[in-house]
Amino acid sequence: MFREAIQQMTAYVPGEQPRRTKVIKLNTNENPYPPSPRVVEAIRQAAGGGLQKYPDATANAFRERAAEVLSADLPQITPDWILCGNGSDDLLTILTRTFVGEGDRLRYPNPSYVLYKTLAEIQGAEPDAVDFDEDWSLGSRFAAAADRLRLAFVANPNSPSGTLVPPNDMAQLADALSCPLVVDEAYGDFADTNCLALVGANERVIVTRTLSKSYALAGLRFGFCVAQPQVIEQLAKVKDSYNCDALSIAAATAAIDDQVWLHDNRAKIVATRARLMQAMRGKGFAVTQSHANFVWCIDANRDLKQLYEDLKAEGVFVRYMPYHGWPEGVRITVGTDNQIDACLALI
Amino acid sequence: MFREAIQQMTAYVPGEQPRRTKVIKLNTNENPYPPSPRVVEAIRQAAGGGLQKYPDATANAFRERAAEVLSADLPQITPDWILCGNGSDDLLTILTRTFVGEGDRLRYPNPSYVLYKTLAEIQGAEPDAVDFDEDWSLGSRFAAAADRLRLAFVANPNSPSGTLVPPNDMAQLADALSCPLVVDEAYGDFADTNCLALVGANERVIVTRTLSKSYALAGLRFGFCVAQPQVIEQLAKVKDSYNCDALSIAAATAAIDDQVWLHDNRAKIVATRARLMQAMRGKGFAVTQSHANFVWCIDANRDLKQLYEDLKAEGVFVRYMPYHGWPEGVRITVGTDNQIDACLALI
Repeated sequence: MFREAIQQMTAYVPGEQPRRTKVIKLNTNENPYPPSPRVVEAIRQAAGGGLQKYPDATANAFRERAAEVLSADLPQITPDWILCGNGSDDLLTILTRTFVGEGDRLRYPNPSYVLYKTLAEIQGAEPDAVDFDEDWSLGSRFAAAADRLRLAFVANPNSPSGTLVPPNDMAQLADALSCPLVVDEAYGDFADTNCLALVGANERVIVTRTLSKSYALAGLRFGFCVAQPQVIEQLAKVKDSYNCDALSIAAATAAIDDQVWLHDNRAKIVATRARLMQAMRGKGFAVTQSHANFVWCIDANRDLKQLYEDLKAEGVFVRYMPYHGWPEGVRITVGTDNQIDACLALI
Repeated sequence: MFREAIQQMTAYVPGEQPRRTKVIKLNTNENPYPPSPRVVEAIRQAAGGGLQKYPDATANAFRERAAEVLSADLPQITPDWILCGNGSDDLLTILTRTFVGEGDRLRYPNPSYVLYKTLAEIQGAEPDAVDFDEDWSLGSRFAAAADRLRLAFVANPNSPSGTLVPPNDMAQLADALSCPLVVDEAYGDFADTNCLALVGANERVIVTRTLSKSYALAGLRFGFCVAQPQVIEQLAKVKDSYNCDALSIAAATAAIDDQVWLHDNRAKIVATRARLMQAMRGKGFAVTQSHANFVWCIDANRDLKQLYEDLKAEGVFVRYMPYHGWPEGVRITVGTDNQIDACLALI
């Protein structure tokens, strides 16, 4: 009854979402602070007006404001360089379906976002995981030619490592690859650089962003991708007609309009991130320099699975992540200072 | 760069969504009344609480309440018979990706919802349109064996005709078909019967529903499908992890909880529908008996495209729909009595 590819595959399992309150949740890279009050106000207004009507199919209000904001990094951007989606996962799905057919190859680094493999499997494509170098750079192996290679994803900053491939290196990868390159900047707002300018220089570079992390809107499901207009036009054929709802469009527009909130929130996260990295190093963990809102900690002398379980028993959720061929680690989301202090005290 | 299937296909074009106000919008089968006040209240509450956190990945609050409501038609239903989605289009996409691979065949009636063909094309599958009989019934041709036939969609009530295949006939089709049958009940709440009971009797019957029409929530994007749990389990592998947002889950739960509102709204729509049908027949149109919230009108002696244009010039949007091999028609959504009176006066 089912496609063979679906029947055989294992479902993607996102991080635990405990429903009980009174937990400290540092396992799925959510922002610990509530979103801008202007977002909440925009939702309350939109709730009262016209939900019986279909939303704007292309979320134009958001695209217009986003184009203004993003023009700092990509001067030629206009709204038709932007496609909006139901979270950036929706865009990763649309990109996979646009470029990758059954039996084709989808490349991504390892260790990285586990969903890339799932997207390849759903499509009946060949997952092609290429290991990072030991210093978390992506060598020329990542750009190597391969039969039926149709698309490459790179999370940048990467999860779980929090590391960043510099834009210049990414541009070289894009030039060397025989297929389009998606730079998944879900955590891009927490880094000091990004790859938006590459989109202007190369029609085969596509950048995805989400409002889940840096705008504290994981519950809203809103993301977007930036690509040259002739690419957006093809991607738009694959999206559901009304993939963004009226409330999320209003909320996302208010969110990206409040750059002061973004700046202040980012400053708090970056400061706490520095404290967390230093404290974990002080406890003997090897901690990579993070450019995201989480910190990756390994320690060959500790039983990290046990540490994860012990913390969970105390109501503190972090993410324990084993990857084949790599040291296991715990990924700790940057919470509030109080949350991080509580977590550190238990460790 | 793109998959051949995507590059070649024409994008699905939904009905016009004029942004100017002061129009009478009878072209995309939206409910003319605002949703239940309890829905608006639920959204306003949810907006203030925890949008920085991911939503419940399976929308359990909705599934629990929906299972209670739907048990009137399907006594054995429990929450694990339900999968929620970002509008029922999301579910139609998930169903296509679960059952239909490249080169497989996807069957649907003609004339019907144009999206079915688009979904086949995106998947690189063969669209297999089977004409309705002249009386809008689906004969045994629809169940005929065919190579690589993997899935069949039937909108019931159908658009644009508003006609209904009775559940007994649908059960026979499901038994005769070699593949799963999706009964798309987007307009099911406006009919007197539905096919939910068939899901209990046959694991290859899947019913989809949306809150866009009968709950007046097109702007919210929330739909669901009902299938046996072992089917839901496979479908869940294909959906995006967090395909429904926290606001729409709260709103949809409040909506399905307010069955008094649904009953009252339905009664108004059904009464206006009867008036509209009678009036259009009085003007010489052939009008099929509608079981939905729209009315399908044909008239070989009128230039219907011109009628559509003339109405549009006056700010009244109806849908002009030509289908190859069938008489062209106009589909008029059941609006408020005042909206329908204004439309009728112009015609």
